[in-house]
Amino acid sequence: MIGTVSLVGAGPGDPDLLTLRAARRLAEAEVVFHDALVSPQVLALARGSHRVDVGKRAGGAGTSQEEINRLLVRTASRGRRVVRLKCGDPFVLGRGGEEALALAAAGIPFEVVPGVSSALAAPALAGIPVTHRGIASAFAVLSGHAEQAWAPVLDGVAPGAMTLVVLMGLATRGRIAAALLARGWPPSTPAAVLLGASTPGASAWFGELGDLGRAALPASAAPGTICVGPVVGLAQAIGAAAPTRVALP
Amino acid sequence: MIGTVSLVGAGPGDPDLLTLRAARRLAEAEVVFHDALVSPQVLALARGSHRVDVGKRAGGAGTSQEEINRLLVRTASRGRRVVRLKCGDPFVLGRGGEEALALAAAGIPFEVVPGVSSALAAPALAGIPVTHRGIASAFAVLSGHAEQAWAPVLDGVAPGAMTLVVLMGLATRGRIAAALLARGWPPSTPAAVLLGASTPGASAWFGELGDLGRAALPASAAPGTICVGPVVGLAQAIGAAAPTRVALP
Repeated sequence: MIGTVSLVGAGPGDPDLLTLRAARRLAEAEVVFHDALVSPQVLALARGSHRVDVGKRAGGAGTSQEEINRLLVRTASRGRRVVRLKCGDPFVLGRGGEEALALAAAGIPFEVVPGVSSALAAPALAGIPVTHRGIASAFAVLSGHAEQAWAPVLDGVAPGAMTLVVLMGLATRGRIAAALLARGWPPSTPAAVLLGASTPGASAWFGELGDLGRAALPASAAPGTICVGPVVGLAQAIGAAAPTRVALP
Repeated sequence: MIGTVSLVGAGPGDPDLLTLRAARRLAEAEVVFHDALVSPQVLALARGSHRVDVGKRAGGAGTSQEEINRLLVRTASRGRRVVRLKCGDPFVLGRGGEEALALAAAGIPFEVVPGVSSALAAPALAGIPVTHRGIASAFAVLSGHAEQAWAPVLDGVAPGAMTLVVLMGLATRGRIAAALLARGWPPSTPAAVLLGASTPGASAWFGELGDLGRAALPASAAPGTICVGPVVGLAQAIGAAAPTRVALP
């Protein structure tokens, strides 16, 4: 009998921010293929499964996307209940679409379980509303991983037209900041780098776009989210009052 | 003793897409102030609470934002455990920032519980990855509610620079489509309107930007999400294989 694959969003890190469906799929999974950065607390919910790290580790060679696609198809073909667990949301900058296409082409029954993306949760938990009446009525999400991908995106956005949220941009933040300044974004535009959002080791840098490239960040393997735009300035009033979450009884 | 307020994202509609924390906050809430469009199935999780609809109904006058802010502050000041339940994510086009500022100014302990935004979930559940290698490396989310808000956003995005996701744009889709065409977006750009995503009555229209203004949609009070960009074309392969979700044991 053929198995199934659930492409599941793991959320930003805190297992409490998994969806109810994601938690159930993990509890019922037989095999879980997960990104390297999925938190151990989330993986612990899949205790009964065989867990395979297919993510790219910093400096190491991960499993290629083509090989991941093959693993998913092969494992489900053998009748297993498979979860492909991806950081954040499976369809936001995570190549979930490629996996879905491979599964569809192979005739494997699959589903997509949307998750809370770090692109939204990291700013929210730091007190930054990515939209705010009178300040920003739109936001864009992009990857800072490859310049050939983000440079044309930045070319296509007028300075200040919307809040920018950059995932996977920690290493390239200097080049991204320089590119924005060169395209006319004011150096005084508020900017933030949010590290390990929703996890116990969460930290943040707040400053201005002109200083983003020089921002001294703690050496950390935690994923980071960069946020640029006037809404970042609201964090002083909002984030200070609710730094991550209040202790509720 | 002073109470607390949780600004909670209700997700796109299916209670299974609530986060674990959101479900717990609803179960423990004493008073819930909710948007009109929050699904009855989600509200049922707050059975033990006093529930107040503060949302704007179609054609009717809802509670003003200022009055909602006052209600939250006043109720928490009386010692109640309050949940402010907002469709999708509280900080995505939902005025959650204004509520957070009001709570911070009043010294009310509060937290933000990020949710799955319809801006991500509606495309994902229809088989549309908002980003896809080689097709789109970024996406923007905007509101179609007020032309003075969306027109400058559309002015600031070069045609095809990123996938566009428009929330609250059902009524204005003709004007939005015309604005995009006038700004140089090709009429053949794939487009979709996703209605009631994640709910039993979900439906979708797929076509091209040039036809979006004339798209005949079912008369429905369901919230709608508009998606414009080449990634919409992937839904034929992905969405047909996993229309909403596979039946899992």
